[in-house]
Amino acid sequence: MSIITIERKVLEKNDQVAEQNREIFRNKKIFVINMLSSPGSGKTSIIEKTIEMLTGKVKIAVIEGDVQTDLDAQRISKLNIPVIQIVTNGACHLEANLVRDAFDKIQNTGSDLLIIENVGNLVCPAAYDLGENEKVVILSVTEGDDKPLKYPAMFRKSDYLIINKIDLIPYTNCRLDTLKSNALKINPKLHIFETSCTTSEGIEEWCCWLINKVSSH
Amino acid sequence: MSIITIERKVLEKNDQVAEQNREIFRNKKIFVINMLSSPGSGKTSIIEKTIEMLTGKVKIAVIEGDVQTDLDAQRISKLNIPVIQIVTNGACHLEANLVRDAFDKIQNTGSDLLIIENVGNLVCPAAYDLGENEKVVILSVTEGDDKPLKYPAMFRKSDYLIINKIDLIPYTNCRLDTLKSNALKINPKLHIFETSCTTSEGIEEWCCWLINKVSSH
Repeated sequence: MSIITIERKVLEKNDQVAEQNREIFRNKKIFVINMLSSPGSGKTSIIEKTIEMLTGKVKIAVIEGDVQTDLDAQRISKLNIPVIQIVTNGACHLEANLVRDAFDKIQNTGSDLLIIENVGNLVCPAAYDLGENEKVVILSVTEGDDKPLKYPAMFRKSDYLIINKIDLIPYTNCRLDTLKSNALKINPKLHIFETSCTTSEGIEEWCCWLINKVSSH
Repeated sequence: MSIITIERKVLEKNDQVAEQNREIFRNKKIFVINMLSSPGSGKTSIIEKTIEMLTGKVKIAVIEGDVQTDLDAQRISKLNIPVIQIVTNGACHLEANLVRDAFDKIQNTGSDLLIIENVGNLVCPAAYDLGENEKVVILSVTEGDDKPLKYPAMFRKSDYLIINKIDLIPYTNCRLDTLKSNALKINPKLHIFETSCTTSEGIEEWCCWLINKVSSH
């Protein structure tokens, strides 16, 4: 039982720093999304596509979270975007203080939109507020249509779901209707996007939503 | 820093129970594998295929670990196999004491092989010994060939890697050679299987390995 108590203290402390982050982001007039998913659902690919489509329209900065390596930051930096890599050295989620320190290094880049790519993990990062405006959960169709039921916290905490790799549906046993209905059972307020980074389907709709959010922020 | 200390205590306690489990499993002459992966890499499908192929040859029992739902246990129980579902209620990994309690309910089924399907998470379960004989990590090709580098602990702790969904390689940008070479960079001793539950490719080789392990145990 002591573990739960300590965990609560960790979360309370994290929530305090997240609120400070929120205030910092508000002062800088930057819209912040926290992108959450399993490993390999396509977070980095969606970010790459988003940057390509929004170049000249929205000034984007990226914070990458990974257990090890700066492979994702290398991919993003090729697109000439301010990017900071957080390596958690084994920790399974980002925390608000890590994001605060990372943002400190890119706060003067005049960005309108900060995309935080969390560690690939469909469980733990759900509990950690980073100070973001929106949590966006990504699920690829290859992961199966039962995942919202099996990992409900992430889908409950997010307001937006990107169903990715929809070009692969014909080659899997994933039923898109079942996936969506399972997700909406967990969270009836979820707004759902359907995307493929291979065919670019759905990327424009996702980017239009982002532009609206950034401009009305 | 205090978190790390507590985490160490949790791990030490877990390791003690894992050793007790190992002793129990030895006395029962049961071979135990701990199957680890991201959500949706195909753990349950591989277990279903394994049960189908080994029926009449090996007596199998299954422990299912999930954050929520007993969907996986429902799938396995259709194959008339003793199965226990552990619902962790939000916890991101199985621990040795949960496995001890679950095994207690199926210890008298005369099984030769216990398959433990861990919570879908490529980070946290790596740290928790359950008393198994072998850790088997599963990675599907749709997750991308960089994952062993980004989530090294899981690949370092496992002796066996199943690369699953190889039928989907033509539809992804995953390079099988790169995936294998990245995995072997992290752990040169990894034995690698390549499987597809859709075409059944590689399932026989995997099952032959299991039969050998169980019979020589």
